[in-house]
Amino acid sequence: MQRYFVEHYERTKELDEITIFDQDIIHHMRNVMRMAIDDKCILMIEQEPYQVKVLQLDKESICCRIISRIHEQTELTVDVTMAFGLSKGDKPELIIQKCTELGANAFIPLNSERTIVKLNHKKEKKRIDRYVKVASESSEQSYRHRIPTIHNVQSLSNFSLTDYDLVIVAYEETVKSNQSYTHLSQLRQQIQSSTSVLCITGPEGGFTSSEIDQLQQHDHVMTVGLGRRILRAETAPIYMMSVLSYMLEANDC
Amino acid sequence: MQRYFVEHYERTKELDEITIFDQDIIHHMRNVMRMAIDDKCILMIEQEPYQVKVLQLDKESICCRIISRIHEQTELTVDVTMAFGLSKGDKPELIIQKCTELGANAFIPLNSERTIVKLNHKKEKKRIDRYVKVASESSEQSYRHRIPTIHNVQSLSNFSLTDYDLVIVAYEETVKSNQSYTHLSQLRQQIQSSTSVLCITGPEGGFTSSEIDQLQQHDHVMTVGLGRRILRAETAPIYMMSVLSYMLEANDC
Repeated sequence: MQRYFVEHYERTKELDEITIFDQDIIHHMRNVMRMAIDDKCILMIEQEPYQVKVLQLDKESICCRIISRIHEQTELTVDVTMAFGLSKGDKPELIIQKCTELGANAFIPLNSERTIVKLNHKKEKKRIDRYVKVASESSEQSYRHRIPTIHNVQSLSNFSLTDYDLVIVAYEETVKSNQSYTHLSQLRQQIQSSTSVLCITGPEGGFTSSEIDQLQQHDHVMTVGLGRRILRAETAPIYMMSVLSYMLEANDC
Repeated sequence: MQRYFVEHYERTKELDEITIFDQDIIHHMRNVMRMAIDDKCILMIEQEPYQVKVLQLDKESICCRIISRIHEQTELTVDVTMAFGLSKGDKPELIIQKCTELGANAFIPLNSERTIVKLNHKKEKKRIDRYVKVASESSEQSYRHRIPTIHNVQSLSNFSLTDYDLVIVAYEETVKSNQSYTHLSQLRQQIQSSTSVLCITGPEGGFTSSEIDQLQQHDHVMTVGLGRRILRAETAPIYMMSVLSYMLEANDC
């Protein structure tokens, strides 16, 4: 059933009615889905899903009656933020689309020493707007209850790590040089007992050793290898988010 | 360092020399990498990696001297085959590229009841050729020792499951209906003790319940949910392969 994240609405509690004013949702319901009176859909209101049926549709607003509050748990128990090295083309969009499906709650595009992509203010704004749209569509499709936050581009060198209980940095040099490395499974308990986890992955070419040294000055920063193979820049965050959601949902069924 | 999977070669054991005859490798070394005498690269010969230096380059062949056999373990200990519902656009390529990085050893594109894509013989051959190229490039990039096998398109209804110790089928209906489901973690020991695992994921819209019933008639077939969210058709195999490689590499470091 079609889902929508509603932002602008009025709710009449006594009548269990919701009137939607979001223009993009109205357009989609009327012109794309061609919905009519009595058709049903799911509205996400303040991170809660409601099954509703349409009472009245017009150009300016759509009024719906709540049939039921849906009880489902689709959010992870730990707040996961993915910070990823900006890369070329549509790779950031792939990261955001996939990691949203897998449960991430926020994204931070990163500039670091080996970042090639340079964005001026106008281009950055355009990109961020696009990323917000990708996160929103992916949230609807995957039955998320919230749309992840997209932060502006930040620089690795002056970016605050203190807001997170645990910071996990993907570093491939240990794998490249065939050394032993910390595996994500060794952080399992720490991840499960955290409130907020930040995962950091590099751009093409990865982080420099001085960047890694600087990150490692913080006690709550752990560097990990992501297995024995070299993952592309956009595969690393998808692998990490897959494993985190696997870990966090292993005990819930 | 650049890596190549060499197929056509002659080896002179006494001199530790390898002469390459693969035209695409010769082209890449000469014209793309612009390699010269004494330049180094890594050649994969019969699934073993060798660091070599170039002795002589010409249009027909390139002769290299072996410097050392590289000791690295980049292959998973379990042979994993990914069978995925054929979907539109470049989604199969994304699945093959990412799951190759993550360690899959074979791919089977599947036709099932809800498959929309219809391929005639000529189109199928073209697609399979393209998939082989994607798997090969992804293997080189991720330091794999072997290139995964790409099978021809098979039909779910008459496809043999007997070649595998364990078959894991992704089935989202349990998640959609908010029921409890078998989580991949419950199969951890079975996966780790298998020689060969087949993962099956559906096309857009998933498998029908009668397809699932038929698959479940086999004792070694397990249906699993992939977490609490609904994953896109191309995300499901990437999630499964991430988790399998995580499980299989959790104890090796």
